[in-house]
Amino acid sequence: MPEISPVDCAHMARALELAERGQFSARPNPMVGCVIVNDDDVVGEGWHELAGAEHAEINALRAAGDRAAGAIVYVTLEPCAHHGKTPPCAEALIEAGVGRVVAAMQDPHDKVAGKGLEMLSDAGVDVELGLMRSAAEALNAGFVSRVTRNRPFVRVKVAASIDGATAMKNGESQWITGPGARADVQRLRARAGAVMTGIGTVLADDPSLNVRSEDIDTRGLQPLRVVLDSRLRMPASVRMLTLPGRTLVCCAGGQDDTGLVEAGAEVAAYRADGERVDVATVLEDLANREVNDVLVEAGPGLTGSLLEKDLVDELVIYQAPHIMGSETRPMFETPSWTTLADRRGLEIRDVSQVGDDTRITATIRD
Amino acid sequence: MPEISPVDCAHMARALELAERGQFSARPNPMVGCVIVNDDDVVGEGWHELAGAEHAEINALRAAGDRAAGAIVYVTLEPCAHHGKTPPCAEALIEAGVGRVVAAMQDPHDKVAGKGLEMLSDAGVDVELGLMRSAAEALNAGFVSRVTRNRPFVRVKVAASIDGATAMKNGESQWITGPGARADVQRLRARAGAVMTGIGTVLADDPSLNVRSEDIDTRGLQPLRVVLDSRLRMPASVRMLTLPGRTLVCCAGGQDDTGLVEAGAEVAAYRADGERVDVATVLEDLANREVNDVLVEAGPGLTGSLLEKDLVDELVIYQAPHIMGSETRPMFETPSWTTLADRRGLEIRDVSQVGDDTRITATIRD
Repeated sequence: MPEISPVDCAHMARALELAERGQFSARPNPMVGCVIVNDDDVVGEGWHELAGAEHAEINALRAAGDRAAGAIVYVTLEPCAHHGKTPPCAEALIEAGVGRVVAAMQDPHDKVAGKGLEMLSDAGVDVELGLMRSAAEALNAGFVSRVTRNRPFVRVKVAASIDGATAMKNGESQWITGPGARADVQRLRARAGAVMTGIGTVLADDPSLNVRSEDIDTRGLQPLRVVLDSRLRMPASVRMLTLPGRTLVCCAGGQDDTGLVEAGAEVAAYRADGERVDVATVLEDLANREVNDVLVEAGPGLTGSLLEKDLVDELVIYQAPHIMGSETRPMFETPSWTTLADRRGLEIRDVSQVGDDTRITATIRD
Repeated sequence: MPEISPVDCAHMARALELAERGQFSARPNPMVGCVIVNDDDVVGEGWHELAGAEHAEINALRAAGDRAAGAIVYVTLEPCAHHGKTPPCAEALIEAGVGRVVAAMQDPHDKVAGKGLEMLSDAGVDVELGLMRSAAEALNAGFVSRVTRNRPFVRVKVAASIDGATAMKNGESQWITGPGARADVQRLRARAGAVMTGIGTVLADDPSLNVRSEDIDTRGLQPLRVVLDSRLRMPASVRMLTLPGRTLVCCAGGQDDTGLVEAGAEVAAYRADGERVDVATVLEDLANREVNDVLVEAGPGLTGSLLEKDLVDELVIYQAPHIMGSETRPMFETPSWTTLADRRGLEIRDVSQVGDDTRITATIRD
């Protein structure tokens, strides 16, 4: 088996770049990219654009044509071995006569992991696994989360002042961050299968929660809007119900949902946790609905509750260069955290300037 | 008059670097650095180390000896023209026969500004003013503030979590930030003529507020410790009264200060603003005591009050990678800021990593 060289890394990096082209449209499928190299020439590139459309490998094979024979195939995810909406990619690679397949990561489904590579290996194709694995896993963190934990990847977005305020006590909270941050949030939404908020935010701000940037091509997809509304207080007249895309209202059951349903909402009842809908149950349901990534854009009550329950995978904090003072609402309402020992450590993943604001991306430390 | 060249800038940058060597010991004098260049050779360097000791120019002239004749002198502050603790530097430069003097900034005293350069010019020396002026003014922001506003430069240091908490409601606040940030605070203290806190912090934490790092040579100087204690609640047994350096307790008057005075504190009464000592009056008194820079290390009550009164010149926020939640104390208590319009904009001057923490240095926008 040949050694991994810088050239291999460059091709895999390119495959990851291609994969990311599916960031706004491939879901619920994973993003996958593929590069086919014959005799040091890139002869084919492909990525997975839309569920139901061709897989990355098939697109790359089509571009490579006859030159796929004997070629090296770099692919960010193990080629599939099963008949889904399309025939198995492993079969197509074998038929094309490729010589070697380098995959960044296995299929995360326990039951199928390794099957695609096995099929290739059995057919005499050289097979290698793990090149740039962590980058590939990070790219599809949502897909991996759904498949392995039956829970979407939960990303919580917060806009706050540098002293951690998200609103004044009087409720004022609009435009804490600037246009750059708002444009950035459009991209977060476009990558998410669902955008979740609480009824408090809906009643206070009547948010749209849709993707409306002309710079983002989602191929018509909108994230599912999810509103946690235990007592079903949402008026049928809210703005989001007039917009393209679907809205799921999560209640504790027992209320009349006629008006909302007539206005186009889906209303579903979930197990309650005290007076509130159990958010873990809602997340499980979203995974069953093939949602890979949930973006939470909510007030401190819901975001704090997710933190308390250790249900947050990533925080994206847009920090505006302002001091808002004490007559404000905090980032997170966490009534159960009463001592310093309750605090959560963060692993800072990225700090970027977005217009006048600073974007801090962090995961919660175990 | 010759044009300013990159070589001039390099020499002035060096002079600024030399000036900064006095950062822990020159006060209440400004930091000043001087470089003497003859025929492209640096023939003398000097800086001002201690009040009462030689000025930067004299040290540089001494190093240059005969080679000062006809030389160019780069100095970060206009040479003095008056007889203070030492004879005037302008005179010494004239006697040494220097050919040209390049000064970064004028003496900020209105009454003496320009006098030193005038004396030089009258003696036939080429004189130039303003090279790297803003860097020179920033270096001596405290001295300039005291001289021009009769108020020290007020720097407020805060240690907080990323969600803006400075303590738990139960009072726990120790070690929010890490050892790197604490070492950095030692440097801030060592540069300050006074460290100010409130009686609440003294009663809760019994802080030392001294410079104790072995890496910092203050030539024995300690910042004046200033405690705002309107009702004179400070016990004579507090730790700071056992440490080297002086302590000033600021009260509203009318209380018995015998115990504190016996324990070594100076107790002074100030005009009250409501129930509290008027902090602006205290700052004015500190300027009269020749304090250039005040470092405020206090709880949200005092820091918030300084912000409300627009008395903060610079914020230094050490942000720890933690989420502390809502059962916490805010960075700043600002009861008068009730709407979003009351918030203050920040000009971020610097963002640095200090150990695990992020240090944000900012000024308040007008």
